[in-house]
Amino acid sequence: MLQLYIGNKNYSSWSMRPWVLLRQAGIAFEEKPVRFDSFAPGSQFKAQLAGLSPTGKVPVLVDDGLVLWDSLAIAEYLAEKYPDKQLWPADRAARATARSVVAEMHSGFTALRSACGMNIEAHLPETGALIWRDNAGVRADVQRLVAMWSALLQQHGGPMLFGAFSIADAFYAPVCMRLTTFALPVPQPIADYVRRVQALPGVKDWIDGALAEADFREFEEPYRLRR
Amino acid sequence: MLQLYIGNKNYSSWSMRPWVLLRQAGIAFEEKPVRFDSFAPGSQFKAQLAGLSPTGKVPVLVDDGLVLWDSLAIAEYLAEKYPDKQLWPADRAARATARSVVAEMHSGFTALRSACGMNIEAHLPETGALIWRDNAGVRADVQRLVAMWSALLQQHGGPMLFGAFSIADAFYAPVCMRLTTFALPVPQPIADYVRRVQALPGVKDWIDGALAEADFREFEEPYRLRR
Repeated sequence: MLQLYIGNKNYSSWSMRPWVLLRQAGIAFEEKPVRFDSFAPGSQFKAQLAGLSPTGKVPVLVDDGLVLWDSLAIAEYLAEKYPDKQLWPADRAARATARSVVAEMHSGFTALRSACGMNIEAHLPETGALIWRDNAGVRADVQRLVAMWSALLQQHGGPMLFGAFSIADAFYAPVCMRLTTFALPVPQPIADYVRRVQALPGVKDWIDGALAEADFREFEEPYRLRR
Repeated sequence: MLQLYIGNKNYSSWSMRPWVLLRQAGIAFEEKPVRFDSFAPGSQFKAQLAGLSPTGKVPVLVDDGLVLWDSLAIAEYLAEKYPDKQLWPADRAARATARSVVAEMHSGFTALRSACGMNIEAHLPETGALIWRDNAGVRADVQRLVAMWSALLQQHGGPMLFGAFSIADAFYAPVCMRLTTFALPVPQPIADYVRRVQALPGVKDWIDGALAEADFREFEEPYRLRR
């Protein structure tokens, strides 16, 4: 069976993407949690991934000895292995666009990712308001998200970015969590899309897991001292 | 015909990847150069990409009205459109690994990319020696490159990372240029791979174009005042 190594569900946005993709597509897999104790060389986290992930990061997918160590590589691998699941849009042009938006997430939105780390359990609207006031990069990233999602939802008619659920929604699911945690201002149709993503069974399962963790990690919590 | 919008050949590492891929695979395309004047909102560069690239970045591939705006999305699109070119390794496990290493390049090696910007025309061994002495992140990135390339060259027997030329070599070609410009120390088998990449006709064509540009861009040249 497929094995997916993931970090803390509350914090690990990169782990969330393939996990949600697998769960939402109904592909069976074994979850292998690797707790964030620290990312230092001597940490338990790095020790557990040694000999498995050459980058020492999560997520890692293992399929019968074959190791994939990047979220996008995992998504492409799953799309190829399970063609009936239509993880990419079936239409050629839509698929090309989906790959562009997923790749944009994979290497971009650095201001948003850096200032508003995923923290599903937290509710930080005041922190979010300060970031929104002072961080032009975050505002630009959210503006780009709004433009992208609005165009795709209009073009494909929703409810997901390319009509039916696809890799694109899995890749933007952690961003949906950030928008909620930091209460960043977005137009109503975008807030509606965020709510629809959070209501997907695969996403809901991840959120429930994150809420159940109760594992406060200081190095992931720059904005507060405790839960 | 395919149209590929690219930045300055001397500096634009992201443009280099799909260009080299197309050229080396023998896929015909029209080159659309967009000169780096500045990356400010009012620049000529941003104006030329407006209405085309939603991120305002290069590369952009246009195929009969269909727009792709990310190097990795372009690579996957080309692999799908030209299956006979075998842009990914044919073997399923090798392809999964190739996708992992390409995705790792797409979102990683940030210390190397940030400290050692691609600058094909330049020869900066003293700058490189200072970076090597003082920047632990660069040393770690190069150590990871050496480990990855050594393992792949040994496993697949060379001359390229997965035997024959693939997307993986196109993605690491700009790194090969950086290693040379900054004369970063690598073991002999790695230096040999770098030389083989630079001798590929598709890479050589790009290098020749970069050398012919003679277009000094100050904002890409933190280490010197002039050529």
